[in-house]
Amino acid sequence: MPLPVPEGYRPLDERTLPAYLAGLPAIAERLGGSPADWRAADVGDGNVNLVFLVHGAAGSVCVKQALPYVRLVGESWPLTLERIWYEYQALIECARYVGRRVPEVYHYDPRLYLLVVECLSPHIILRRGLVDGIRYPRFAEQMADYLARSLFFTSNLAQPAEEKRRRAALFGGNVELCRIMEDMVFTEPYRLHERNRWNSPQMDGLAEEIRRDVPLKLAVSRWKLRYMNSAEALIHGDLHTGSIMVTPQDTRIIDQEFAFYGPMGFDVGAVLANLLISYISQNGHATAAQPREEQQRWLLETVEELWERFRDAFLDLWREHGLGDAYPQPLFADPAAQAALAEERKAYLQRLFDDAMGFCGAKILRRIFGLAHVLDLETIADPDCRAACETACVRLARDLLVHPERYRGIADVTAAAAALRRDQSPAGSDLQRGTAGAA
Amino acid sequence: MPLPVPEGYRPLDERTLPAYLAGLPAIAERLGGSPADWRAADVGDGNVNLVFLVHGAAGSVCVKQALPYVRLVGESWPLTLERIWYEYQALIECARYVGRRVPEVYHYDPRLYLLVVECLSPHIILRRGLVDGIRYPRFAEQMADYLARSLFFTSNLAQPAEEKRRRAALFGGNVELCRIMEDMVFTEPYRLHERNRWNSPQMDGLAEEIRRDVPLKLAVSRWKLRYMNSAEALIHGDLHTGSIMVTPQDTRIIDQEFAFYGPMGFDVGAVLANLLISYISQNGHATAAQPREEQQRWLLETVEELWERFRDAFLDLWREHGLGDAYPQPLFADPAAQAALAEERKAYLQRLFDDAMGFCGAKILRRIFGLAHVLDLETIADPDCRAACETACVRLARDLLVHPERYRGIADVTAAAAALRRDQSPAGSDLQRGTAGAA
Repeated sequence: MPLPVPEGYRPLDERTLPAYLAGLPAIAERLGGSPADWRAADVGDGNVNLVFLVHGAAGSVCVKQALPYVRLVGESWPLTLERIWYEYQALIECARYVGRRVPEVYHYDPRLYLLVVECLSPHIILRRGLVDGIRYPRFAEQMADYLARSLFFTSNLAQPAEEKRRRAALFGGNVELCRIMEDMVFTEPYRLHERNRWNSPQMDGLAEEIRRDVPLKLAVSRWKLRYMNSAEALIHGDLHTGSIMVTPQDTRIIDQEFAFYGPMGFDVGAVLANLLISYISQNGHATAAQPREEQQRWLLETVEELWERFRDAFLDLWREHGLGDAYPQPLFADPAAQAALAEERKAYLQRLFDDAMGFCGAKILRRIFGLAHVLDLETIADPDCRAACETACVRLARDLLVHPERYRGIADVTAAAAALRRDQSPAGSDLQRGTAGAA
Repeated sequence: MPLPVPEGYRPLDERTLPAYLAGLPAIAERLGGSPADWRAADVGDGNVNLVFLVHGAAGSVCVKQALPYVRLVGESWPLTLERIWYEYQALIECARYVGRRVPEVYHYDPRLYLLVVECLSPHIILRRGLVDGIRYPRFAEQMADYLARSLFFTSNLAQPAEEKRRRAALFGGNVELCRIMEDMVFTEPYRLHERNRWNSPQMDGLAEEIRRDVPLKLAVSRWKLRYMNSAEALIHGDLHTGSIMVTPQDTRIIDQEFAFYGPMGFDVGAVLANLLISYISQNGHATAAQPREEQQRWLLETVEELWERFRDAFLDLWREHGLGDAYPQPLFADPAAQAALAEERKAYLQRLFDDAMGFCGAKILRRIFGLAHVLDLETIADPDCRAACETACVRLARDLLVHPERYRGIADVTAAAAALRRDQSPAGSDLQRGTAGAA
């Protein structure tokens, strides 16, 4: 029995899409020429939704439509159609602050739960590029700017309290997508669960160790509570390297359906987690022809540069646009107060760093032991080599979660990652001895 | 020009109220006899709303109606009628967990923005009783139970994530009432503002000192951000001793219009703040005939007992009903994990104590320098004596905010309060020397 859907809803396909778009004058004009010549291609890499690229004589658009279930899994995993509305809301809210870092929205159809957005070309998914050993010299700067602007401007540091409360309440209904994170990031990897999978048998021992690791489970539960309670800013909510499209010159952020008002560190930590996975996983992609050492050096630099540029950009924005209800300007007008506030801002960013590192650890672990894995590790052909990379990832992640005091700055994190990469232990060895680089 | 109101809205009065209630069969039955014999009395102590008690042959009810402005101030301060809807929502949600600690709701009228609730009798406002030197032997136990149950059961410790997010979003629209707290608790007392007032000229010096006190302004701004960001549980939001009605045997919590999903410590801190003000202010009410020493001893004991009973009750509830999405049960099933989780719960309560103390400090200061003062201090006839009490309050509050590390347990707080009471300095003396008892 098919899942029930609202009246008027029907999933489109490559055949029916051109006729539908022909009924939208602005889109038709953008595509140009005759609808009969438009070509719709199911790009199929949407794990959750239908995604089509449509090409016309004059231009292209991207069409994203929600299905009443998770596409990758099928009707056995129902999922609200409303997710596309949250994506739409997040795109238009975010665009106010980050401009073209997010795709432009051309059309939203509330009956078909369908979004027509800018077609990004020649961008590719960042994760794909990193696996292929490509470097993106503008990425750190552009991503830092996106993070700083999207998080700062939607927070109480920039917004009136009422406006922010109303926006947070609007996204408060995105409960099903938040539930996916609550379960898949913070819970399932730490227990026996039918959705979990891992590189077996190589990682069986570590999977069991994780399930028995009480300090780790307490730490991850603390971060889960923070994810559930802390409405700091409009966050992307799923900001891994598969939600970022790039060219060597340009960075764009897609797939906003997990957006809600949550902790800033969740977004920052997600990006850093996936860069660190990429860094460690390069060992599994290195060949004589492509040794990947340059790529690894660049990835570690990017981790550091991303955090430092983000921190500095955020501080700059706060200094210049801190007109929200937090730390009200009239309380800090004279020079002595200004100087103290400058120190307070730095302390705020240090707390945000701590948050980012906690979420970073959780985001790494779920990619090894949970349902959703990453190409960076899955495309390593030799399962032993893959397990060695995965073990290094797990070791770093656990240490970030259980020993946050060891990571006071981003250089502590990159040093630990570098030490783990050099010294990749056989899979399954004692996890609790910690990381060599951060001791 | 009168403020615009929705069609069908009209404020009722003592004359029109009986006819209106006669149209509500369940209320008419409760009041009993003939509507002609019902007596409606404007109790008038609502600062914000219209409040009537209506007495019939068989029973009584309390009627609360929102005006489109703040009653105490008049039409120059418009305020949303919707506040009564939030009060209604909070009452019915809270009643699920605390039963008769909140008044029973008999009727809600969305057109008149009017609520008919249980008439509490012979209860009086707790603040009034404390000023008069009355002791309430059951208060600490009942209040602790109310706090523990209302905060625990509406949090992620007890609730599924979706349910709690949806409830938090529902209260997310209560922005105007939250704004009052954001302004009047966390902002206005720390700057020149037309709404501020204080015991002048005695407290002029301290008022200015507060406005120049950068560490204090930073601390209070941190707590403001927490008030704006942290959706931990359904909180009362204005839980001073004027929102509590008592008999020596019974404690009831009223005036829920400020309710929203906020930080648990805001409610706990509010109650403790007002008990500490009462404690210190007793110096100003002591006479030869009524020396108030017993009352003061009881108040300090109540502060300690309230916190300790709250902490223990909260821990008990968590142990027995911790079925929410935080710290998921399946992750902590075996005895070693259970033992570690027990320690984690204690650490959680210690953080909640820290939160309560921060909010407690802010709640005390706003009563000395902001718009809304308290009877405990205002009824001290001699302005010098009043100022000495106020100065002790300010000193305690500032220390709680600026030196939280000095207050690791409730006994540190009561010791500091006791030292300040014994050693009430002349008003306006150097604030930053801190508190004698907590050094």
